[in-house]
Order: sequence, then structure tokens, then C-alpha cells
Amino acid sequence: MSEFQVLEIKKSVFEDNDRQADALRDELKEKGIFLLNLMSSPGAGKTTTLGQTIKALKDEMTIGIMEADIDSDMDARTISETGVKVIQLHTGGMCHLDAEMTRQGLDGLDASGVDLAILENVGNLVCPAEFDTGSSKNAMILSVPEGHDKPLKYPLMFSICDVVLINKIDVMPYFDFDLEKCKEYILMRNPKAKIIPICAKTGEGMKEWTDWLRDQVKEWKQK
Amino acid sequence: MSEFQVLEIKKSVFEDNDRQADALRDELKEKGIFLLNLMSSPGAGKTTTLGQTIKALKDEMTIGIMEADIDSDMDARTISETGVKVIQLHTGGMCHLDAEMTRQGLDGLDASGVDLAILENVGNLVCPAEFDTGSSKNAMILSVPEGHDKPLKYPLMFSICDVVLINKIDVMPYFDFDLEKCKEYILMRNPKAKIIPICAKTGEGMKEWTDWLRDQVKEWKQK
Repeated sequence: MSEFQVLEIKKSVFEDNDRQADALRDELKEKGIFLLNLMSSPGAGKTTTLGQTIKALKDEMTIGIMEADIDSDMDARTISETGVKVIQLHTGGMCHLDAEMTRQGLDGLDASGVDLAILENVGNLVCPAEFDTGSSKNAMILSVPEGHDKPLKYPLMFSICDVVLINKIDVMPYFDFDLEKCKEYILMRNPKAKIIPICAKTGEGMKEWTDWLRDQVKEWKQK
Repeated sequence: MSEFQVLEIKKSVFEDNDRQADALRDELKEKGIFLLNLMSSPGAGKTTTLGQTIKALKDEMTIGIMEADIDSDMDARTISETGVKVIQLHTGGMCHLDAEMTRQGLDGLDASGVDLAILENVGNLVCPAEFDTGSSKNAMILSVPEGHDKPLKYPLMFSICDVVLINKIDVMPYFDFDLEKCKEYILMRNPKAKIIPICAKTGEGMKEWTDWLRDQVKEWKQK
């Protein structure tokens, strides 16, 4: 049976989110917890990618997952089957998480001893980009069916992400998706972005992604 | 050459959006302008569906389109090729449109004489659901690659829409998408919702959709 807690997130009282985010990041650094903020549109494949990522890394490090959702607890249910620590965060209609809300999630999860904490943010390409969660790194998933023009239309999201996973590459033949143009548009927004085409369903590209993530966690714990 | 105006939308000064929305709806009713608010996730196919809808109806009625986007003007460029009146609304980072912002758009478009005005809202399943734009009817597009579970995860959006178009049904064989379950979940959120499976690319289902829309416009103008 799946077991996880559901936490109703409270609206933040802090006005200066950037300061809260920096403070949380410093604290996590000290405790050796790497926090990944994972964002995407609804249905781009965050939970499936997360499930595969956990399978690949859970024997090497302690992982804790925060599933943010407006209302349901489907994602926490799915993730709990992987055997890692997971908490469902209900945002109660709120379209994003900020640093203080993320802190509530980490407290609820009891992240002490966790090496890699992942926040699956609310499915939304607009609002989550505007709020620093205090994460060590930001990742986003763009799925092939959404189209290669999305970096042009949601510029902020692409500019704040350290890594962009292009998911569902198995269905590329059925969509007018130009991978090279997509990469060009992403780099236009963010020349330092790491871009990894993947298919979470078939496993394609997942090694490059989990290798990158493993390196980031190691680096974070060393410095 | 494509020709359209770009309007930088100002943040609303009104606190009571519901009152503004009702006032706008009354005004549009009096002028015989039917306003459709079209919403979806990024990349669900709003612009393609819109292009096909315009082609089907433009000889029967005067159509005006408002393309809302954070930043780009790609959609207005695409739509302007259909020959109908179009305006690009830049929300400047804002994740939704409210009634006052919609009014700015209608003024910019110069909607007098228009029978059917369509607002293509910002690609987002969360925030646009919370703000009544003053529209006559709300429509949303859910695309097959997003998954049939979305009504469970974004409940408000599905509950406020009069019609849900399930788009990209041509790729159904390549995704784990259960159409019957999807319909069941939508009706759970909104028992009155009209559900129409379509493929904007191939034209499948588009007649049922444009027939529905034509009837709505006629009814709006009669009463």
C-alpha cells in the first residue's frame, strides 16, 4: 500500500522571496541537501521522468520527493511506489511554489539525511518561473507534442533553467517538431542551458540526465 | 504581408473582477458580440484550432481575434494570414487575462461590428480559470499527449468550461490515453460540459465544434 503524507501549503507571509530563497539555499548547502526544482507544462511527463530518475539513483543516495499539486494526490501515490520518501503538497489553487512554501514542504517531508530532494512544481510554464524556490538547480521538461516554439513564447521559464529535458522524443515522427530549432531557441534564451533529449517511457537519454544530476549532487555536497 | 497591432496590456486597477466581467458581458450582449475565451496548456493546439475555426466560419460572420501572450507575436502573425481582424496582446509576464484586460483588448481590436470575438488566453491551466474575462462562453482544449488525468489535477479549469475540445486524437495510438476515462473525469468536474474530440490538423471533429460555436453565436445574438 502506498503511504505518504498530504500537506496543505499555507500562503507565504514573506514579501522578499529572493531573500527567503537565498537563506533556504544556504541552509540546504550546509546540510548537504541538493534541491532540484522540476517544472513543466501540464502533462509534459514530470512524474514519469521522476519515477525513472528515482529508479536510477535510489541505490546511490537518499532521495526525498515533494509533489506539488492544486488538489489531487495522484503523483505522490505513483512516486510512493518507488519506495522513496514522498510528500504531497496541496497548493490550494496557488499556481506556483515560492521559497517559504518549499520550506514548509521540506519540513513536512523531514528532509534531514536526504541527499537529493526534488520538488515537482505545479504544471505551469508561467508563474513558477517567477519565484525562486531556494533550489540548488532548476530543471524543466519540454515535451515534443508542445512544439519547438515554446522557448519563444515562455521566455522566462527557459532563461532560469539550468537544464532542459526534451521529453517524448519517441513520438517525434508524428509531430512537426524541429529538434535543432528547439535547441537554438533554448540557447537564445539561455546560452548556458544544458539540453538533454529523453524519452522517460523508453529510457532513451535517461543515462545522460541521471549522470548530470548525480554530478550536480556530488558537486553541491563537496564545495 | 501580415498586419496586426501589438498592444501592451496594463495591469487592472479594479479589485472586483466579477463585477467588471458581468458589466462587460452585458455590454457585449447589447452590441451583439459573442466573446469566446479559449484556454489550454502550452502547446495543446489553440492557434491551430483557431485557424481552422476561422476558415470554417469567416464567410458567415465577422470574426475578431485577440492573441494573448507573455511576449511573442507568433500567434497573431499566424492568425493574420486567415484575413480576419487580429490583435496581439502582450501580458508582460502576467499569467492570465481578467475582464478589464480583455476590455483593453476589445478596444484595441475595435470589436464593433464583430459577431464572434475570440480571446486566445495565455497557455496555462491554472490562473486563467480563476478570472472571469466577461466572455459569453469558456472553451478549453486538452490535448491527448497531456494525458486523460488532467481533469483530476486541474479541477477549476474543467469546471468553468462550457466546452472541452480533446485535440490531437490522431496520435491517440501512440499515447496511453483513455478517452472514456477522460470524458468521465471531465463530467465529474462539470456534468454540463460539452465534450468534442477533434484533430485540428486533420479536421476530424471540427464540424461538430464549429456547428456548436455557430449555434452559440446565433443564440447570443437572438436573446
